[in-house]
Amino acid sequence: MAITADNEIPEIKEREREILAVAAQLFAQDGFETVAVRNIAEKVGLSKATLYHYFKDKDEIYARIVIDTLEKLCLITEEKVAEASTAREKLAYFMEANARFFEENIWTATAMLLGLGGLKQPHARDKAAYWRDRHEQNIRQIIEAGIAQGEFREIDPVVGGRAILSTLNWMARWYKPEGPRRAAEFAQDYANFFLEGFNRG
Amino acid sequence: MAITADNEIPEIKEREREILAVAAQLFAQDGFETVAVRNIAEKVGLSKATLYHYFKDKDEIYARIVIDTLEKLCLITEEKVAEASTAREKLAYFMEANARFFEENIWTATAMLLGLGGLKQPHARDKAAYWRDRHEQNIRQIIEAGIAQGEFREIDPVVGGRAILSTLNWMARWYKPEGPRRAAEFAQDYANFFLEGFNRG
Repeated sequence: MAITADNEIPEIKEREREILAVAAQLFAQDGFETVAVRNIAEKVGLSKATLYHYFKDKDEIYARIVIDTLEKLCLITEEKVAEASTAREKLAYFMEANARFFEENIWTATAMLLGLGGLKQPHARDKAAYWRDRHEQNIRQIIEAGIAQGEFREIDPVVGGRAILSTLNWMARWYKPEGPRRAAEFAQDYANFFLEGFNRG
Repeated sequence: MAITADNEIPEIKEREREILAVAAQLFAQDGFETVAVRNIAEKVGLSKATLYHYFKDKDEIYARIVIDTLEKLCLITEEKVAEASTAREKLAYFMEANARFFEENIWTATAMLLGLGGLKQPHARDKAAYWRDRHEQNIRQIIEAGIAQGEFREIDPVVGGRAILSTLNWMARWYKPEGPRRAAEFAQDYANFFLEGFNRG
């Protein structure tokens, strides 16, 4: 069987990426429930039938966005954190990398963070949970190491990690990329609040 | 004209409250776009026609939920903060009151916080913006006063206020009331992180 251009892996990948990018923006702007597969197909310039060649349904598109985004966020942050030495530095690198990733992937990240319906397929839920938990675990381990090394006081790593991720995740609700400050700059300030506190002391 | 039971103000108010409570839970659980006026009417035990006697449309129901919730949150928090004397105490009271309100009004607060579509009517948007801005302004003023009184270091009140509200607002995405810890307890820990920092100092 001849391999047609349409079946070459790089082109399929490219087309898939395009569909996911368009779908993420629509989900983030209009909400998952309001967007129909037809809307996604139209905006990519494909027929609905052709789009179904790439993805089974809207749930599969959404699951791919969520899982891909969480995986990349987790791995990019791990890479960045590995360059730091102290726990204080690791915490700041974690927050900056997270915010930079958010800004560079604003539609997929927003669709992932604000997705209300959640994932319907159990195997998709499991995969997403794996990356989300690993990312959460990473910030907890940074806090635990900081306590063990005497850099941080005896705080609860679970609550501390959640506070940090809350400030990063809530950016999906207010951050405007067209504004003068980068998301990573806000993250630096946040990191500083967590590290130093508001205390004058 | 005889006043029928249905027209007496307290009963109308009560019925309105019931509709808003049911609608908020449906919006929070299923997303604004998926919920139809018919679903709300059914769950309250009213016909769709009777429900339209109380509210013009779904947008009006949602606007009432958002505005009422923001107004109450702002006023209850102001009341609580007025009992505190130092800026440190005010900051902690603000966060605790906010989290307690969230837990006691979990459906309306979640519908308000996660509402993706936003408010369509300009006058509803203005009202919601008024209460949201006043609430944000309140936490900024606490920080500014803390800096002026020498309790806090020279931090940016806008960014500090946003960090605080982010940790509180993100509860709408993860907090489970059936768990062992109250939302206000998490808020106390968060307040402590902001006040003291993670620093062993």
